[in-house]
Amino acid sequence: MLTLVIGNKNFSSWSLRPWLVLKQLGEPFAEKHIHLYSPDSKQQLLAANPAGKVPVLFDGLLRVHDSLAICEYLAELFPAARLWPQERADRAEARAISAEMHSGFTALRSEMPMNASLRTLLQPSADCAADIARITTIWRQLRQRFVADGDFLFGHFGIVDAMFAPVVLRFVSYGVTLDPVSQAYADSLLSLPAMQQWLDEAELEQAATDA
Amino acid sequence: MLTLVIGNKNFSSWSLRPWLVLKQLGEPFAEKHIHLYSPDSKQQLLAANPAGKVPVLFDGLLRVHDSLAICEYLAELFPAARLWPQERADRAEARAISAEMHSGFTALRSEMPMNASLRTLLQPSADCAADIARITTIWRQLRQRFVADGDFLFGHFGIVDAMFAPVVLRFVSYGVTLDPVSQAYADSLLSLPAMQQWLDEAELEQAATDA
Ligand SMILES: N[C@@H](CCC(=O)N[C@@H](CS)C(=O)NCC(=O)O)C(=O)O
Ligand SMILES: N[C@@H](CCC(=O)N[C@@H](CS)C(=O)NCC(=O)O)C(=O)O
Repeated sequence: MLTLVIGNKNFSSWSLRPWLVLKQLGEPFAEKHIHLYSPDSKQQLLAANPAGKVPVLFDGLLRVHDSLAICEYLAELFPAARLWPQERADRAEARAISAEMHSGFTALRSEMPMNASLRTLLQPSADCAADIARITTIWRQLRQRFVADGDFLFGHFGIVDAMFAPVVLRFVSYGVTLDPVSQAYADSLLSLPAMQQWLDEAELEQAATDA
Repeated sequence: MLTLVIGNKNFSSWSLRPWLVLKQLGEPFAEKHIHLYSPDSKQQLLAANPAGKVPVLFDGLLRVHDSLAICEYLAELFPAARLWPQERADRAEARAISAEMHSGFTALRSEMPMNASLRTLLQPSADCAADIARITTIWRQLRQRFVADGDFLFGHFGIVDAMFAPVVLRFVSYGVTLDPVSQAYADSLLSLPAMQQWLDEAELEQAATDA
């Protein structure tokens, strides 16, 4: 049985990514939660993962930390789910974009932190607007190429879509207006039952914290 | 024929990683250089890669950006080189550590930027010292487990070692004192002919820039 350790559903963008992949796989898994804003958070994080962060996946005695490495591991465990595209060149491209998300878009990440239940209107800085433009350019180009194969970036749902799932939530939270192709892609992600479940649970969790 | 586009050898830590993997593969490849500190750098970067960064690998018409994604692509192209460990659990661990390097260690990266030809003594901040402690703990634990299999983290040279190659150069540049096991591992990386070649070329390049 796989166990995924995650942070607060309202805030933890990195936790959402492998959680969504696991849900889309339809595999049963256990969830463990670490509250990221309590006095002993750091202690709990370090006990779960010497790197001091969530998410972490446990598969028996094996511990895999980092969202991207967890997704790679799931892609190896469940090859039939085609979590990466089947063509080598497409796979390389999907990995490149996923790695870009994993290490970049710092303006977007700092200016529009994930806060799933928030609804506001924010005027992005020039750097953040550049991040948004780069992301939506990627989306538009891929959706044009793979429009016949399904609703996700390479047609079929995959890791690259999970990497962008928190970005979609940010666009909703901060009222970012999108071109029609990007909006349609964002809607495909938002209408996944797993995304709705995450949002519902984020709201419940926030209500409990604020109470 | 593969072509790798890289930045200044003296400064571009992300460029070193896939370059070293390609050298260790012994595969012929073309190198293209973009000077990172000239008025038209950004324009050149964007022409090579819409993400605006180096490294980028070209394989015919295929463009793969991001150091980690390039390494994954090379691991697929050259399976016999075992760029990731052969056991699935080890491979997951190697990917987790590589991803941690890819996205983390921000204190080390900002306080001790790669500057291959620099020799100085720097007292690290607490955050930077914590990054160094985490890295050397990873090194010591893996070297203990794989000591019988070779001189690198999982015995055999792989992507995870390339991910740490710039860190080793930083430790030399900023006079970071290491425990004996970590120092021996750093020396294994430093004594690779490819690393010596990179350092020689970094020095020549710097001499030409300073002239
Ligand atoms: N590169 C990591 C980043 C993980 C990360 O930054 N997680 C945040 C929560 S979203 C965290 O654990 N923060 C707690 C801390 O740094 O103390 C990944 O992709 O998993
Ligand atoms: N996540 C990227 C990072 C690449 C990166 O930041 N490259 C630097 C040089 S080491 C760069 O191109 N900087 C130029 C710029 O950002 O304008 C990777 O792993 O390849």
